[in-house]
Amino acid sequence: SDWNVIEYEGELRLEKVYKFPDFKSAIAFTNAVGEEAEKEGHHPALLTQWGKVTVTWWTHAINGLHKNDFIMAAKTDAIK
Amino acid sequence: SDWNVIEYEGELRLEKVYKFPDFKSAIAFTNAVGEEAEKEGHHPALLTQWGKVTVTWWTHAINGLHKNDFIMAAKTDAIK
Repeated sequence: SDWNVIEYEGELRLEKVYKFPDFKSAIAFTNAVGEEAEKEGHHPALLTQWGKVTVTWWTHAINGLHKNDFIMAAKTDAIK
Repeated sequence: SDWNVIEYEGELRLEKVYKFPDFKSAIAFTNAVGEEAEKEGHHPALLTQWGKVTVTWWTHAINGLHKNDFIMAAKTDAIK
C-alpha cells in the first residue's frame, strides 16, 4: 500500500497515485473506481491525467478519516 | 466563460469548475471531455468529485499556455 495520509485545508485525507501507460487506461480506472464509489455511496476525488490517477478518500461529514475511507482505499487497490 | 488563468508550480494553466447535481453526471462529463482529449491528442487534468469536475488545460512542453489550450477550453464548454 502506498497510501499517504495528507492534510488538505485542515482535513486529513488518504491519497494514492496510480500509474498507467496512457490516458485511456487512466480514465478506465477512474470509471472503475467511480462505479465502486456509486455502489458504496461514498465518493472520492479522482484526478485523471495522462498516465496517472490520483485517488483521494476522506469523510467530509467528520472533516477527516473514517474507517470506511480505509476500506474504500483497499477496494481501490483491488480494482487496480 | 469562467476559465481562470492560474499558476501551478510556476506554470500557467487554464482552469474551470463545472457543477453537476450528482457524481454520476460529473463522471459522465469527465468521460466526454476525455474522449475529446483523446481525439485531439491533448490531455487535461480532470478532477472528478461529487457534484463537480475541475478541468485544467496547459501545455507541458512549453511550461505554459498555447493557443491550443484555449481552443480545448472552448471545446470543453461546448461539451457541457
